[in-house]
Amino acid sequence: MKDNNKKTLITVLDYDANTFVEKTVTDVKDCLPYKDQPTVTWINVDGLDCPEVMAKLNEVYCVHHLLIEDILDIDQRPKMVEQDGHVFLAAKMLFYAADGQTLLEEQVSFILGNNFLITFQQGVEGDVFEPVRQRLRVGRSRLRSHGADHLLYELLDAITDKYFTVVDKVGERLEKLDDVLLKHPDPSVLKKIGKIKKDLLVLRRSVWPLRDAIHSLAHSDTDLVHDETRAYFHSIHDHVIQVADTVEILRDTTSGMLDIYLSSVSYRLNEVMKVLTIIATVFMPLTFIAGLYGMNFNTSASPYNMPELTWPFGYVMVLGVMLCIVIGMLLFFKNKKWI
Amino acid sequence: MKDNNKKTLITVLDYDANTFVEKTVTDVKDCLPYKDQPTVTWINVDGLDCPEVMAKLNEVYCVHHLLIEDILDIDQRPKMVEQDGHVFLAAKMLFYAADGQTLLEEQVSFILGNNFLITFQQGVEGDVFEPVRQRLRVGRSRLRSHGADHLLYELLDAITDKYFTVVDKVGERLEKLDDVLLKHPDPSVLKKIGKIKKDLLVLRRSVWPLRDAIHSLAHSDTDLVHDETRAYFHSIHDHVIQVADTVEILRDTTSGMLDIYLSSVSYRLNEVMKVLTIIATVFMPLTFIAGLYGMNFNTSASPYNMPELTWPFGYVMVLGVMLCIVIGMLLFFKNKKWI
Amino acid sequence: MKDNNKKTLITVLDYDANTFVEKTVTDVKDCLPYKDQPTVTWINVDGLDCPEVMAKLNEVYCVHHLLIEDILDIDQRPKMVEQDGHVFLAAKMLFYAADGQTLLEEQVSFILGNNFLITFQQGVEGDVFEPVRQRLRVGRSRLRSHGADHLLYELLDAITDKYFTVVDKVGERLEKLDDVLLKHPDPSVLKKIGKIKKDLLVLRRSVWPLRDAIHSLAHSDTDLVHDETRAYFHSIHDHVIQVADTVEILRDTTSGMLDIYLSSVSYRLNEVMKVLTIIATVFMPLTFIAGLYGMNFNTSASPYNMPELTWPFGYVMVLGVMLCIVIGMLLFFKNKKWI
Amino acid sequence: MKDNNKKTLITVLDYDANTFVEKTVTDVKDCLPYKDQPTVTWINVDGLDCPEVMAKLNEVYCVHHLLIEDILDIDQRPKMVEQDGHVFLAAKMLFYAADGQTLLEEQVSFILGNNFLITFQQGVEGDVFEPVRQRLRVGRSRLRSHGADHLLYELLDAITDKYFTVVDKVGERLEKLDDVLLKHPDPSVLKKIGKIKKDLLVLRRSVWPLRDAIHSLAHSDTDLVHDETRAYFHSIHDHVIQVADTVEILRDTTSGMLDIYLSSVSYRLNEVMKVLTIIATVFMPLTFIAGLYGMNFNTSASPYNMPELTWPFGYVMVLGVMLCIVIGMLLFFKNKKWI
Amino acid sequence: MKDNNKKTLITVLDYDANTFVEKTVTDVKDCLPYKDQPTVTWINVDGLDCPEVMAKLNEVYCVHHLLIEDILDIDQRPKMVEQDGHVFLAAKMLFYAADGQTLLEEQVSFILGNNFLITFQQGVEGDVFEPVRQRLRVGRSRLRSHGADHLLYELLDAITDKYFTVVDKVGERLEKLDDVLLKHPDPSVLKKIGKIKKDLLVLRRSVWPLRDAIHSLAHSDTDLVHDETRAYFHSIHDHVIQVADTVEILRDTTSGMLDIYLSSVSYRLNEVMKVLTIIATVFMPLTFIAGLYGMNFNTSASPYNMPELTWPFGYVMVLGVMLCIVIGMLLFFKNKKWI
Repeated sequence: MKDNNKKTLITVLDYDANTFVEKTVTDVKDCLPYKDQPTVTWINVDGLDCPEVMAKLNEVYCVHHLLIEDILDIDQRPKMVEQDGHVFLAAKMLFYAADGQTLLEEQVSFILGNNFLITFQQGVEGDVFEPVRQRLRVGRSRLRSHGADHLLYELLDAITDKYFTVVDKVGERLEKLDDVLLKHPDPSVLKKIGKIKKDLLVLRRSVWPLRDAIHSLAHSDTDLVHDETRAYFHSIHDHVIQVADTVEILRDTTSGMLDIYLSSVSYRLNEVMKVLTIIATVFMPLTFIAGLYGMNFNTSASPYNMPELTWPFGYVMVLGVMLCIVIGMLLFFKNKKWI
Repeated sequence: MKDNNKKTLITVLDYDANTFVEKTVTDVKDCLPYKDQPTVTWINVDGLDCPEVMAKLNEVYCVHHLLIEDILDIDQRPKMVEQDGHVFLAAKMLFYAADGQTLLEEQVSFILGNNFLITFQQGVEGDVFEPVRQRLRVGRSRLRSHGADHLLYELLDAITDKYFTVVDKVGERLEKLDDVLLKHPDPSVLKKIGKIKKDLLVLRRSVWPLRDAIHSLAHSDTDLVHDETRAYFHSIHDHVIQVADTVEILRDTTSGMLDIYLSSVSYRLNEVMKVLTIIATVFMPLTFIAGLYGMNFNTSASPYNMPELTWPFGYVMVLGVMLCIVIGMLLFFKNKKWI
Repeated sequence: MKDNNKKTLITVLDYDANTFVEKTVTDVKDCLPYKDQPTVTWINVDGLDCPEVMAKLNEVYCVHHLLIEDILDIDQRPKMVEQDGHVFLAAKMLFYAADGQTLLEEQVSFILGNNFLITFQQGVEGDVFEPVRQRLRVGRSRLRSHGADHLLYELLDAITDKYFTVVDKVGERLEKLDDVLLKHPDPSVLKKIGKIKKDLLVLRRSVWPLRDAIHSLAHSDTDLVHDETRAYFHSIHDHVIQVADTVEILRDTTSGMLDIYLSSVSYRLNEVMKVLTIIATVFMPLTFIAGLYGMNFNTSASPYNMPELTWPFGYVMVLGVMLCIVIGMLLFFKNKKWI
Repeated sequence: MKDNNKKTLITVLDYDANTFVEKTVTDVKDCLPYKDQPTVTWINVDGLDCPEVMAKLNEVYCVHHLLIEDILDIDQRPKMVEQDGHVFLAAKMLFYAADGQTLLEEQVSFILGNNFLITFQQGVEGDVFEPVRQRLRVGRSRLRSHGADHLLYELLDAITDKYFTVVDKVGERLEKLDDVLLKHPDPSVLKKIGKIKKDLLVLRRSVWPLRDAIHSLAHSDTDLVHDETRAYFHSIHDHVIQVADTVEILRDTTSGMLDIYLSSVSYRLNEVMKVLTIIATVFMPLTFIAGLYGMNFNTSASPYNMPELTWPFGYVMVLGVMLCIVIGMLLFFKNKKWI
Repeated sequence: MKDNNKKTLITVLDYDANTFVEKTVTDVKDCLPYKDQPTVTWINVDGLDCPEVMAKLNEVYCVHHLLIEDILDIDQRPKMVEQDGHVFLAAKMLFYAADGQTLLEEQVSFILGNNFLITFQQGVEGDVFEPVRQRLRVGRSRLRSHGADHLLYELLDAITDKYFTVVDKVGERLEKLDDVLLKHPDPSVLKKIGKIKKDLLVLRRSVWPLRDAIHSLAHSDTDLVHDETRAYFHSIHDHVIQVADTVEILRDTTSGMLDIYLSSVSYRLNEVMKVLTIIATVFMPLTFIAGLYGMNFNTSASPYNMPELTWPFGYVMVLGVMLCIVIGMLLFFKNKKWI
């Protein structure tokens, strides 16, 4: 399931409260000058199809090759690892594709080091980090005067905010289905419910382990995360729990909709059967009576053979009997609350 | 989902065993004089659409701006945080709207400090704190001689009491549905069950994390909660667990009602089908016999061609046969316990 | 749900290995003389509608007023609290009403102090403590030579024994339903299953927290429970777990019965439909053939117009064809295992 | 559920690597001579209806009377208790009765002391310990040179081995049902599934607490279990977990079979309804047409009155039309994949 | 379920960075020369039907006989044990048989000692270790310069990689079924779903305990696993969790498919019933009318006896009425959205 066919794009942002440099580089070695400066360096790698880039980052920033394997594995579960003086964090970016129906997942990995943060994006689509970049460009933002750990917080916050958007969207789709469900329950609704269920599973798989990862981050005793930043990670932890809660509620609602679908189908079957039963029950006795007087017994052979046929009011009488049957049946159904 | 369009209203109550001051202020600075006095100050902020109020509270009472974000987030889960010498507690007020059908949720946040308590209400409707206020106004109430932590207890108690009311109401609605369910099961009942299920989910989401929050509060080692007040928080903790238990039981009951609905629908289908089958099974043979003797075989062509038609008692015999069939069928159904 | 309308009854038993006093008092002050003696005093309060009694007990035995609130709350969950040198334990007594169908719940609270035990019963019905009282009256019972903690054990044991009776009764009711289920599945069975489910929920709600309460009691480091008594509380703990296990198994069985009910209903629908289908499938072709030869085409207009009507064996032939159809259909149904 | 009507049988085995004595005693006092010797003494009590035996064992081996209560309670959950220098272990022996259908449960209790092991069997049927006894009788078995704790291991191993047999048997019964399920789903299958479910619940109730009991045994710091024996108890612990796992999988399979049963029944309903619908849909139009030309409009009253009846090819035409309808209907059903 | 009928095959690989020896031995004693050398020795035993081999390994490498029992038990759950200076690890190899439908399970056990690793394969089919062997044969592989613990990592990695293949295969089979499900739901689909469910249970049973085993391995304080290898075991632990997550999601999807199957069947029943009802409802009134005018009332007996029969436009009128009924019914069904 590797899909790294986008060209790899490396951008570097180097800043402190006073200075700000932004450039796109092609060779990782160009990041070297920023390495040992007290400024914060954010290297963003977009697209994972670049073994030589990885190799160089490894050389320059001493990233363990197991971490590099994790970065390249786009099915990596969200997790947090401390290794060789780095904090590694894997997360999932989620967003709806342009058609508003397909949920896309994108692997993002973070390597937080001393004064630097490297982010790796799978490069499926877009970039939720642009607002953060914008705020960095503006001179006086509070963000500029904080360290790399605060930058990590801001980027995670951008990702979590996107989760809320996705969850809201799923909620909207469920509400739309709710109306259709009772009126026109057909298997296509079932397919749609199935799709929403799948999206919720994707969300769940992204959110639950992220919760643990951020918890570990907030409680780890690494020096890379300053004490004043921990409270911010706690706040993201809260948001992720909020998303997880909503996902569970939506899952519950989705299951409930399946029940409603099933009972709606069987209610409709009931309605169909009632119509059939009413029609059959009214017309069968009538048809029988009509058939009865359609018999060809020879009335002249004996006075017991269908004398009704020659009565002056025979026909009228039969019609009367039929009318009584119809009325009787209708009263019976009324009584049973079928009509 | 921000809905802060109500005007923000700030009331201050300052009291000890002997003195009592209550006033409505427009500027938070007016609270300043009460700050460093040994009396208990309760500042209640109703409506959250007031950034400048928040900012000033921040200045005056040094509330961390992450807490202020939590206060403003009306989807905040119930939680308890100790930060910078404050205890922050978020909870949900729940009550039924005037129509008795819609469950409303209102975010309430508490900031407990040294000798003061600030409460923030989302301002959706009413105020469950009025009885507490009333008791404060009365001179000799025990409440007046306790600290701000005891005031927090009383307010939480007022909120929890409301939960019991809501849970009772849900129980009543379920009981009403129970009667309808077996008699007239139609999809509207399903909708109502769905609505109750949703309300129970809302309750659950409010109650479960509140349980943990109050547990943390009762077991935290903060100086702001006195040892004699802890027992009171334990008692609220018990009440919240009681609510949570009842919610689980109601959820179980609701699921059971869905089963009853489904089996009631299929039982009714069964009844409809029995009527159809009885009618069809009785009249089909009769109609066939009538049709048989309605055939036009030429009786004069051969003595084997429907000689019955010319028999003197042919018609009477046919009627007799039909009667036997009807009786036989009815006995068969009786035997199968269908009638 | 307060239902304290019974008159409050206070009985005092004071005993040690040699002495035994039993009397009914109206004023709690009458208990005072037994307070500071080395004998064990058991005060049993039957009926909770007695604020002044509570107030006096509070004065005399220094019971915290939160505990008194818990005693008066008849929806109190089973729990164990140590406070101000007392051990408080709340439990539920369960028994079937005289009709053998209604499960009654009665709140019982225990306050264990130094050399005394106070029990509070809601007073719904009867008293499961009589056998214990009887054994106390008899001089040489081992019970008399033990402390108040052992008395508490004996009373809890009496309550737990009652649980076993209730669980057995529920099991019996389920077994009775099991027979009805396959033979006459109608919605009344569903109602009965629903009732049993509710009773099991009540049992569960009483037993699970009691388990934890007794566990805390057995493991608490209070001096009020002697080391040799702890083993006894462990044994009650075991019994409560046994009840809880059986309740879970009965809940499982109940769910299974719902499945059997539903599939029994749909199996019966199947049977009904088979009868309908057999009748319709046999008679419809026959009726058609009869109708065919009931047509009035003018046989004299052309030799192609229903020449069968004038054949000498036309009628016999038609009857033969009909017989073949009936036999064919029956063979078809036999083959499908419908008959 | 006490069923202790078998006569109590006491057998004593006393052995070390060199000596071996086996005898049946009637009085517990006969066990006394083996008490203080360094040899291992195994006293097996078969049948629990013997208060005086219990009393004497109590005297001779100082067993706490709460343990004796546990031994006599045949509904005792598997558990492990250390008390007064003894290790008490309760377990359940499970085996199928001779009919291969009824699962029998037998309470077994073990009291492990210094150099002795007392086992109590409820005495329902047989004895799974015979192979162990056989190995003891043989001089050179490794078993003879180990202590009483190793004997306990061997007996528990014999019990656990029996669990595997029972689980395999349940698996076989499920497989047999699997075939029946799709071919002849009738409520008797449901009954059989229900029985298997119950057996699995019994297994579960026996196995889960035994797992904990053996875990406690292996990890307890009693001197009665030697360090080299602990590994053996760990191995039994593994076996019990294996049984528990298989039980869970079988439970899952059983639930799945219920689903298959239900859907098989509804699939069959579908098939029945298709037959009915095909027959009705084919013959109703035909019968109508036949009925149409059975009307008695007076053709001589006007040329518009059923002129078809006098057309030379009227009858042939009608037959042709009917044939077209039949073919059309069959094509329609073919298209819908009903036939 | 023992199936050890393959001949046992023992291969020895002995290597360090510079030397490499590979040979097949028949007698375990041939492994002896490699025992006390600093090179890494990997002994692979394929096929378990070899008590004498086991016995000798026991002698030569001092493996505890309980571990040997575990090695021989092909139903052994994955687990990790440290005993007598060895690390024992049991795992399950999973792969699809050649038919691509049958999931095969093969027991693999590892004994890691000082400088040696012994692997035992049940020998059902093939060998997933060949690639590792290949890399060992190549001189410069990193693998050659690491110890026996790293070899264990590589072999476990090969097994886990196979899990991903199996999980992908199950996912594909589910996707194929998804298409069939809505179009042709018949019980064979149900059987296939049941088979996939079983495979997922097998996977689950293999993966969950392996997760714990590898966790214990990574966190054990044995000297046999070097600190730099621990990170590698953590990475395998991550992979196993990933597999476990996917298995849970697939289980959820499978359950969802059962729901879709059931509702698809009942939707189809609905469709069948609609066709029946439409046909019956249209033709029953028509047939009744035709029957009505097929009655033989004597029109000459009285002017009230079926005067319509002699009206000049009687037949045309009746046909008109019939047409109106058909149109009316069709409009009614259109309105109900049945056609």
